Amino acid sequence: MESLRVELASRSYPIHIGAGLITRADLYAPYLVGGAAALVTNDVVAPIYLAKVKQALGNARLAEIVLPDGERSKSWRALEQLIDQLVAARLGRDALVVALGGGVIGDLAGFAAAIYQRGIAFLQVPTTLLAQVDSSVGGKTAIDHPQGKNLIGAFHQPCAVLADVTTLDTLPERELRAGLAEVIKYGFALDAPFVDWLEKNIEQLLRREREALVYAVKRCCELKARIVAADEREAGERALLNFGHTFGHAIEAATGYGAWLHGEAIAAGMVMAAELSMLTGHLKKNEVARVRELLGRAGLPVAGPALAPERLMELMALDKKAAKGRTRFVLLESIGRARLRADIEPAAVRRAIVAAPQQL
Amino acid sequence: MESLRVELASRSYPIHIGAGLITRADLYAPYLVGGAAALVTNDVVAPIYLAKVKQALGNARLAEIVLPDGERSKSWRALEQLIDQLVAARLGRDALVVALGGGVIGDLAGFAAAIYQRGIAFLQVPTTLLAQVDSSVGGKTAIDHPQGKNLIGAFHQPCAVLADVTTLDTLPERELRAGLAEVIKYGFALDAPFVDWLEKNIEQLLRREREALVYAVKRCCELKARIVAADEREAGERALLNFGHTFGHAIEAATGYGAWLHGEAIAAGMVMAAELSMLTGHLKKNEVARVRELLGRAGLPVAGPALAPERLMELMALDKKAAKGRTRFVLLESIGRARLRADIEPAAVRRAIVAAPQQL
Repeated sequence: MESLRVELASRSYPIHIGAGLITRADLYAPYLVGGAAALVTNDVVAPIYLAKVKQALGNARLAEIVLPDGERSKSWRALEQLIDQLVAARLGRDALVVALGGGVIGDLAGFAAAIYQRGIAFLQVPTTLLAQVDSSVGGKTAIDHPQGKNLIGAFHQPCAVLADVTTLDTLPERELRAGLAEVIKYGFALDAPFVDWLEKNIEQLLRREREALVYAVKRCCELKARIVAADEREAGERALLNFGHTFGHAIEAATGYGAWLHGEAIAAGMVMAAELSMLTGHLKKNEVARVRELLGRAGLPVAGPALAPERLMELMALDKKAAKGRTRFVLLESIGRARLRADIEPAAVRRAIVAAPQQL
Repeated sequence: MESLRVELASRSYPIHIGAGLITRADLYAPYLVGGAAALVTNDVVAPIYLAKVKQALGNARLAEIVLPDGERSKSWRALEQLIDQLVAARLGRDALVVALGGGVIGDLAGFAAAIYQRGIAFLQVPTTLLAQVDSSVGGKTAIDHPQGKNLIGAFHQPCAVLADVTTLDTLPERELRAGLAEVIKYGFALDAPFVDWLEKNIEQLLRREREALVYAVKRCCELKARIVAADEREAGERALLNFGHTFGHAIEAATGYGAWLHGEAIAAGMVMAAELSMLTGHLKKNEVARVRELLGRAGLPVAGPALAPERLMELMALDKKAAKGRTRFVLLESIGRARLRADIEPAAVRRAIVAAPQQL
């Protein structure tokens, strides 16, 4: 087992990464001091892992809460029902919420834990690659609003994260690839040597080799932990984790959420952002090619959907990261060095969107 | 104008206390950096103060949100509608929520600000004595659940508090007295010299003399600020602010919320807690008499409702401060020295409840 720590003073917490962690009672025990817990999961994960986690939770008084799979569970209604179940189970302030599943479960259960009795402890047990490298680390929790994803939420740090790579064995191929998009993002935005490693090991990851998965998950968590420790509430540096996301969110919105997986959208978004980095800065043509090539080897899209560039640009203007009306972009100065820029002309953005598919 | 500061590192904020503050544009300006705000109030306060505050907010792009007066606005539905209005007004992360009203408005608008886009700034402009000395300071925000008050919420500190004592001129007499119950609580729980001052100045406060009001509000805020700075999330010392509240909450619940005002219930609760302090500790008979007498002079109840003591005891056992099944009480060692105790026998609690009305 590999372990690291997110340093946030009184809210610091460990991330454990390894094989077979979800059945280890000793990893849950420190957080069961109140003797009661709610185990929140979805109807896809429950049949495979619920019984195992239940056994590991031992004698704790347990409320089992199984939600429908999918983004629709990140709604007011689902949140209200979840809170009703915490109340019905008479959970006190010392109870623990265990979030077993992907990003949707972590975001929803984490937000419920954030607001139930003004905040109780929660433990992230991510079962998708995306959740292991991204959404379960950093304390962002949220539900969606009809007008926008993650519009309602809280920063609420987990008490610990158990990232068990054996749970990735049952992950659908397409979701594995989508998770790899975020893994690749960490490299291009923050860590050139990690890009080198990924270029050598992308096939091992696609074959789900445990050693490679543990290394990749750990490296991503280290990078994210460092940034979160420096910028818990996303005032500055944390925005760099959004490389590819300004374009990616627009692709997700334009295609109605769900047609493209988040990772697929940000893969195409990273290519556009790389093109824009070349058009408006110093990124070299061969560096843009490396972005495109690694994503392609991971089986990810390297061009956006067949839409007028203006449609994506309109949606980007609505993105909640837009400050004072100017869309902000995370661009690359070189491989592994991302910077936040708010000085980009719309004409360049348009050219970057168009450039992506043309060079296929 | 008197000012003090709640020291909470990066979440520190000022409390300004004085006459005529709500119309002072300079007190709002530092928090209008984003140029947009939502002004949240209720239909009783709006006709009197909305236009004044609006003028002070100057050129800010403004969403006016007027809710029905009363505790029913602390519901999921009201919260959801309020968030919908923030979204409809396209408020960004740099917008400000201004909570203009009593505790209900502060709790609801503060909670909406806590979860909108994972937290935006909010400014407390309390217009009741209760809100000026208690609910607007300390960052507790919440809505109610059918199974319990304040069961869903967040700790979200305001960016500033403007306590304008001239707004108390329009406060109904009964609410003024209920607010004085909390003022008196600060004295008996934490500050013996303040009890002496109150015994000399209670009539001035009832006559709403500005100098006396400013002094009392400031002293309460100082006491609360000190405690909140030491214990933001109510792990320990902050519980001392709940003197009279374990009994008081049970009285509110037993009478169905609303029949008794919060301050009236905790007034009777303080008498019971004082009796219990004498029965199980060192509080002297003449000290219990001082509690009863000062509350009586403020026109507050000094005995509970006509109910079997067992009914109140049942409700206290459900109180969310109950840790591991044992009801905790804030009791007095002497005037101005409260302590948290979890070792109280039910028989003594019963005797304290019965003692209150018998000595009328």
